[in-house]
Amino acid sequence: MGFSEHLSQIVKSVDGAVAASVMGFDGIAVETEMTSLADGLELTTAWVEYANVLNQLKVAVQGLKTGPMSELAVNSERLLTLVRMVNKDYFLVLGLLPSGNYGKGRYLLRITAPKLALEL
Amino acid sequence: MGFSEHLSQIVKSVDGAVAASVMGFDGIAVETEMTSLADGLELTTAWVEYANVLNQLKVAVQGLKTGPMSELAVNSERLLTLVRMVNKDYFLVLGLLPSGNYGKGRYLLRITAPKLALEL
Repeated sequence: MGFSEHLSQIVKSVDGAVAASVMGFDGIAVETEMTSLADGLELTTAWVEYANVLNQLKVAVQGLKTGPMSELAVNSERLLTLVRMVNKDYFLVLGLLPSGNYGKGRYLLRITAPKLALEL
Repeated sequence: MGFSEHLSQIVKSVDGAVAASVMGFDGIAVETEMTSLADGLELTTAWVEYANVLNQLKVAVQGLKTGPMSELAVNSERLLTLVRMVNKDYFLVLGLLPSGNYGKGRYLLRITAPKLALEL
């Protein structure tokens, strides 16, 4: 299964999913799947900024000595964004509506990340 | 009800809660409640770093035009950290074990933040 199939499966399986992407910590998207719900949202621009912030959060979390950062969620009034680390260079990101299935989104990112790690 | 009572209620009501704090975006903790689960964790140091990162995430989220950032979660292998914005100057943070009640934590931060906003 390629990246695009994995992303497409996530987007189809999570109610309220807007878009999913595999991105590098350098801010470059490897592959992105969007739904019509993504119209008018500047997702990719914002996610590039997230890549930058993730690098700093990694360092802050190291200070906690509770293991490396595995997951991040950044939620605003009209969009929830879930991020799951794939390996040291890549992460998986899912945007969904606040009415969407947050728990299922977290679950699917968690089980998909190791599969992507094998292919990257 | 003072800050300390609000925090203590959160920590007592959420299974696996480690500590809760009201913090300024300047990184200064207004009030903190810890449980014995917090022993050996450098929570306050890491949370000061989070305050710094939050300021940058606020800007990244503005780029999305989906409303201001309301919530953040930063999860590592052995600790989940939930953050809820109180107002433009303060946020509420809760650390809990991965086996803890994540959903209840999110819920309590969401209902407590407006109460704190009235007192800050």
